[in-house]
Amino acid sequence: MRVYDIIKKKRDGNSLTNEEIEFFVSNYVKGEIPDYQASAFCMAIYFQGMNLDETTALTLAVRNSGETLDFSSVDGVRADKHSTGGVGDKTSLVVAPIVASLGVKVAKMSGRGLGHTGGTIDKLEAIPNFNTNIEKQKFIQIVNEIGVCIVGQSANLAPADKKLYALRDVTATVDSIPLIASSIMGKKLCADDDVIVLDVKTGSGAFMKTVEESVNLAEVMVGIGKKAGKKITALITDMDIPLGNAIGNALEVKEAIETLNGNGKADFVEICIALATEMLYLSGKGDRNTCESLARKSLMDGSAKQTFKNMIKAQGGDERVVDDLSLLPKAKYNYDIRAEKSGYIYSVDAEKYGLCALSLGAGRNKVGDKIDFSAGIILNKKTGDKIEKGEVIATLYANDQGLFEKASQILLTATRISDEKPTQRRLILAKVE
Amino acid sequence: MRVYDIIKKKRDGNSLTNEEIEFFVSNYVKGEIPDYQASAFCMAIYFQGMNLDETTALTLAVRNSGETLDFSSVDGVRADKHSTGGVGDKTSLVVAPIVASLGVKVAKMSGRGLGHTGGTIDKLEAIPNFNTNIEKQKFIQIVNEIGVCIVGQSANLAPADKKLYALRDVTATVDSIPLIASSIMGKKLCADDDVIVLDVKTGSGAFMKTVEESVNLAEVMVGIGKKAGKKITALITDMDIPLGNAIGNALEVKEAIETLNGNGKADFVEICIALATEMLYLSGKGDRNTCESLARKSLMDGSAKQTFKNMIKAQGGDERVVDDLSLLPKAKYNYDIRAEKSGYIYSVDAEKYGLCALSLGAGRNKVGDKIDFSAGIILNKKTGDKIEKGEVIATLYANDQGLFEKASQILLTATRISDEKPTQRRLILAKVE
Repeated sequence: MRVYDIIKKKRDGNSLTNEEIEFFVSNYVKGEIPDYQASAFCMAIYFQGMNLDETTALTLAVRNSGETLDFSSVDGVRADKHSTGGVGDKTSLVVAPIVASLGVKVAKMSGRGLGHTGGTIDKLEAIPNFNTNIEKQKFIQIVNEIGVCIVGQSANLAPADKKLYALRDVTATVDSIPLIASSIMGKKLCADDDVIVLDVKTGSGAFMKTVEESVNLAEVMVGIGKKAGKKITALITDMDIPLGNAIGNALEVKEAIETLNGNGKADFVEICIALATEMLYLSGKGDRNTCESLARKSLMDGSAKQTFKNMIKAQGGDERVVDDLSLLPKAKYNYDIRAEKSGYIYSVDAEKYGLCALSLGAGRNKVGDKIDFSAGIILNKKTGDKIEKGEVIATLYANDQGLFEKASQILLTATRISDEKPTQRRLILAKVE
Repeated sequence: MRVYDIIKKKRDGNSLTNEEIEFFVSNYVKGEIPDYQASAFCMAIYFQGMNLDETTALTLAVRNSGETLDFSSVDGVRADKHSTGGVGDKTSLVVAPIVASLGVKVAKMSGRGLGHTGGTIDKLEAIPNFNTNIEKQKFIQIVNEIGVCIVGQSANLAPADKKLYALRDVTATVDSIPLIASSIMGKKLCADDDVIVLDVKTGSGAFMKTVEESVNLAEVMVGIGKKAGKKITALITDMDIPLGNAIGNALEVKEAIETLNGNGKADFVEICIALATEMLYLSGKGDRNTCESLARKSLMDGSAKQTFKNMIKAQGGDERVVDDLSLLPKAKYNYDIRAEKSGYIYSVDAEKYGLCALSLGAGRNKVGDKIDFSAGIILNKKTGDKIEKGEVIATLYANDQGLFEKASQILLTATRISDEKPTQRRLILAKVE
């Protein structure tokens, strides 16, 4: 088998065999296939696509390139959710405790933030002493005892994906559905779950800007999951507007806890309930209506909150934050951004909102950058809200007052105020199952 | 300017500016753009193509990446021909002397053979002591005195092409019209000619297998030449059958000399006259009929032969070979391949004929391999000829008898004998001007 022939076969629009795809990925990871052949191959895939069998083979080759986790010693059904990344997306902090409180196990590996999107691991680490680096036996023990444990990805998880992604990032081959789907699912399938619910974000703050693209991606990922023997559903959800009112790690933990206390913002609660419902439904907890009622009850009666508290304690964190938000990191300075005219918030650029938070220290420009847990934004007005000239649109939080000027410029530019009231966009735009 | 944006722009089907193309090529040659970005870029060009302005900019960037030759001290019109490479293609050895004998200057840089195709420089070096490595001042002096001089390409000619070609060769991005056209014309335009006649070979022994592909390539190359201010025509000529009867360096020199003596094979003479006619016509020697008569006369009255002899002498070679073919290198052994049945030679695979000669030592598997000037094939029967069982199809020449068995197998497999007489294919299939 020659890599040249594999590139040419794909270039000419033919389907590759499992063996050819496995040969490519395993030899690329070993360094036996040079980057210049891999990038030409990715560009050929960009143009010619891959069918579901090929994409599944690529996914499994990515998964098999590194360590995989055996969850057979976890008692009961294991369910996970995965978001394709958005701005202000703290759903895992609420959904995982809801589901775990109802007897479904959530043994979750999450990622860190990059660019305009945040990461669940960074958010959890905003809780004093919270440990996301837990060895496997202890991880499974916590899952069995508490129902949920959330850790960072092991360094040896899907090395093929790390290497391919870094290459795609500099060769304009990122936006290819089979490459995106196999990257996400290749990592997701390293964990040994029974149920996977995907939250495919769509809109100005997401990687996929249109519902159509998101449905295409979701269909491929759901197809891969099914071929790998998983129960899997994808929700296509709105990310034209940041989710909830907080952007930034400690601020988002605070919003998650308020939600677990029954005081969540409507948009954020709706998405959390929808995701939890799907996870419970696929885990066999009843029909969708029953599962939705169970999820709402867990959120309202404090069960989910208690599970979250138990998880923080089990992972070494200060669980008192759940009852005393003042124990979370707080920024030294804040700054109100005020409307320059009256009207409605007609639209916002959610990605720019994410970049605004990043500029305050809440995110990373590149892997390895340090972040400021206390920095971020609290939105006072969101798309569709009426606002008067001089009223506060948002409050910025940072430990360096010098950052406010640039950040407020980013946010103001990303916020369109109009006399016209925008039509309300649905939060859950489609479902792929 | 970022190379990522250039790749993405081409990937998305947009036209690149001259500056973007120049930036890419110059930085790639300097090693400031890595191979993995260049190969992704070539694959994007493979799929999206390039318009004539882009292809011309790429051609000029390739040319400008290394040394160019100033021919301003050559007296009179400078004309060159270029063949895209075939089997048994010794036309330059006949065409250049014809044209030069009629007062048009031919200051020619030629290449070496690789794989199944031969190279003019190798053929000339089969003449004892012939020197193809002549410094520039002497080169121009010979052109001015004799009318023609043929030398090898300087090591620093179009380094961007060498680097890009080596990369394309291993990333399945060779067969792209703009990349092929800019590679050929980028090297061709390093010489400072007024007139260029392209011989685009088509068929089983050529890189382009169909007339349509060849016309497409020719149109782009002619377009580039015109934009670069050249008088330029392309002939699309047949390479379904090897040209003439000899394949192999000394054997081809012998056939060229026989042709210059007025005893050429009809197919070979026809192509030589057609190419010479175009070169003379574009050089202003009269209308095409006049130029054709001039070319035929030069071939028949010995003027072209005398010019060839003068060139050999001026380039240090033993010019007596022109009158005494026994002075050319001769193989120790020969071997007759006989027909296994009676019928017509219905078709041959000219590329395999070239590979047969290669296997006898007449060619190179890779750049830098040594070649055996005396090895090769003399064809006794060609496509369309009637043959009896046991009659000689071809005679192989080599200095190692052990090579004959495999070589005769290659040639027999590449020769189809049938009861049916094939329809005759024209030699000159199209003209692009």
